[in-house]
Amino acid sequence: MRMDFLTLFPDMFPGVLGSSILKRAEEKEAVSFYVHNIRDFSKDKHKKVDDYPYGGGAGMVLTPQPVFDACEFVMQQTPASVSPRIILLCPQGKPYKQRDAEMLSKEEHLIFICGHYEGYDERIREHLVTDEFSIGDYVLTGGELGALVIADSVTRLLPNVLGNESSHRHDSFSDGLLEYPQYTRPADFRGWKVPDVLLSGHHEKIAQWRKEQALLRTKKRRPDLLQKKEKE
Amino acid sequence: MRMDFLTLFPDMFPGVLGSSILKRAEEKEAVSFYVHNIRDFSKDKHKKVDDYPYGGGAGMVLTPQPVFDACEFVMQQTPASVSPRIILLCPQGKPYKQRDAEMLSKEEHLIFICGHYEGYDERIREHLVTDEFSIGDYVLTGGELGALVIADSVTRLLPNVLGNESSHRHDSFSDGLLEYPQYTRPADFRGWKVPDVLLSGHHEKIAQWRKEQALLRTKKRRPDLLQKKEKE
Repeated sequence: MRMDFLTLFPDMFPGVLGSSILKRAEEKEAVSFYVHNIRDFSKDKHKKVDDYPYGGGAGMVLTPQPVFDACEFVMQQTPASVSPRIILLCPQGKPYKQRDAEMLSKEEHLIFICGHYEGYDERIREHLVTDEFSIGDYVLTGGELGALVIADSVTRLLPNVLGNESSHRHDSFSDGLLEYPQYTRPADFRGWKVPDVLLSGHHEKIAQWRKEQALLRTKKRRPDLLQKKEKE
Repeated sequence: MRMDFLTLFPDMFPGVLGSSILKRAEEKEAVSFYVHNIRDFSKDKHKKVDDYPYGGGAGMVLTPQPVFDACEFVMQQTPASVSPRIILLCPQGKPYKQRDAEMLSKEEHLIFICGHYEGYDERIREHLVTDEFSIGDYVLTGGELGALVIADSVTRLLPNVLGNESSHRHDSFSDGLLEYPQYTRPADFRGWKVPDVLLSGHHEKIAQWRKEQALLRTKKRRPDLLQKKEKE
């Protein structure tokens, strides 16, 4: 898989893309990351990328020209047989969920458009992008963190990325339940002890306890997930 | 405000904290960011920070000792009168929303615990943290991006950070509606034109059109937001 990030703040990317699982995934050639500065594609003599909104109002709006040109430059680098998903990060987008990560992990090429400022010119939305996603109901200063969140959640699902060390089959959300409590050494930390059942060696009882705890926690913290599960 | 990030991957932070609004907020002394490597606090001779889960299962679990010690080290650096919020990023946390950003923006000190691997020892949750947040219903490889998302959404609400250039009063979610479409120059881009009303100069009609568009878009894309609005 190939992922391209179009941004006005390219310095936000290398630290995240070069750490942990994302770094390892690129080393294993499961994915390649490319970061492009939208400003480099501006045809304005001052390399301007934003302008005042028509109709008035506060803030600046990203102009269409540099975004279209950056995106078309990237699309020329992908085989003609591949249709890239062009993803816009914005509060108006579809709320991003685990099932979207699963769907995107089957694609060959993702292009992320990360806006900043007050918004995007609507023509970018109408005539360029294939998907609009919002990573949550909160306002961020730009789309960069959203693009990195999606890249991270998709990359860990690619074949051979996680390996045996951390299976994603039992992750929260994958089966519609929150995960059960986990404990590790020491058995007694500052007087706070690990539940006896986990030390019992009785596999059936442990499985039963974990199932109960996962249900209990989901019921208490996220009853909406259980309702969704029942509907399905 | 002071924000501390406890992490096993400190390299993920400087690029994001040193760009755009976060960088400017720190320069204006509206906020100070500190990043700490949890591994530096491990008392294990090999600086180990994780161990196998009690009761079996795949993956590794973050041990309590280095996390407690890192957090207590940071808490010693804050005045005794300040009670820091100690925030755990995890899929089991409360779904993070704009109103949480508003609430956290009134605090003086936030400490973020960013886990990696399969999970946290439950005693970290029970005896150390004050808040657990999840930034969305998807699985990430660690808590770092979640911490950065919260830091970004909170920082932009601090006094004097955004200034006049980009008011946050009309943001999506702040008033329960998605934002209306924005357009900027050129009025005609590749034959795609800006709606006439925005070029009319008629302020009342423009305001009316924008209100209608915001409602229409919210109804089409996020009817759940309108239902919530009605309930309140």
